[in-house]
Amino acid sequence: MDFTVRPIGRVESPLMSTADAPRQGDEGAPDANLILDSEVQAGLHGMGVGDEIILLTWLHQADRSILSVHPRGDLTRPEQGVFTTRASSRPNPIGLHRVQILGMDGVRLRVSGLEAIDGTPIVDIKPVLGAIDER
Amino acid sequence: MDFTVRPIGRVESPLMSTADAPRQGDEGAPDANLILDSEVQAGLHGMGVGDEIILLTWLHQADRSILSVHPRGDLTRPEQGVFTTRASSRPNPIGLHRVQILGMDGVRLRVSGLEAIDGTPIVDIKPVLGAIDER
Repeated sequence: MDFTVRPIGRVESPLMSTADAPRQGDEGAPDANLILDSEVQAGLHGMGVGDEIILLTWLHQADRSILSVHPRGDLTRPEQGVFTTRASSRPNPIGLHRVQILGMDGVRLRVSGLEAIDGTPIVDIKPVLGAIDER
Repeated sequence: MDFTVRPIGRVESPLMSTADAPRQGDEGAPDANLILDSEVQAGLHGMGVGDEIILLTWLHQADRSILSVHPRGDLTRPEQGVFTTRASSRPNPIGLHRVQILGMDGVRLRVSGLEAIDGTPIVDIKPVLGAIDER
């Protein structure tokens, strides 16, 4: 049984292609904007500047048929299964990004270092979980 | 533009309903099995017992129309946007679970404390990222 992902917004970034993008957000990725659809604005209620969030994206340029890759594209490293790597190529190319909110204006969020390219569909936002007694 | 998620396997768990399930894996959830489809077995190459993984699921019983919830179902707490909570109800109900691999037998993985119920579709597996120089 399949399921349908309906994007809730898009990434706005100076990164225009995956060739320009670092492999992870903490490897020199630029700040970016998340432009959410106005229909989901109520879902942001309670979010604020400084919050650490987990952003889920759909890596729309990924090759979904690939199951093995050279880690980090390094041909000197033996191939590994994609589920042991963060390669974008995988059966369901969901991107996982931990970022911090630097600014908010309605459905427009400014976030720290994000390696997703301009136009990447956003599929979910979750808080980073604190200790059990703070949930 | 929408996208299609094609599950790569299912959770096998003693948790038979969300009413029985703890809210997070570290809140007393039982160990569980991940039964992957044989077509994606190559994607597991290099994974081993003891690895910490991030499991992505599709929370198939979630209500996708909900944008606000009382955190942790506690009616004494004011409603917040779903993107500031880990509620399963959200536009794209993707579950995010950090677990450890306790055992592996082909496409069958045993994992530690998982709050997803029996039959939950699995959509992706990623490694927990180490320090930059260890990637």
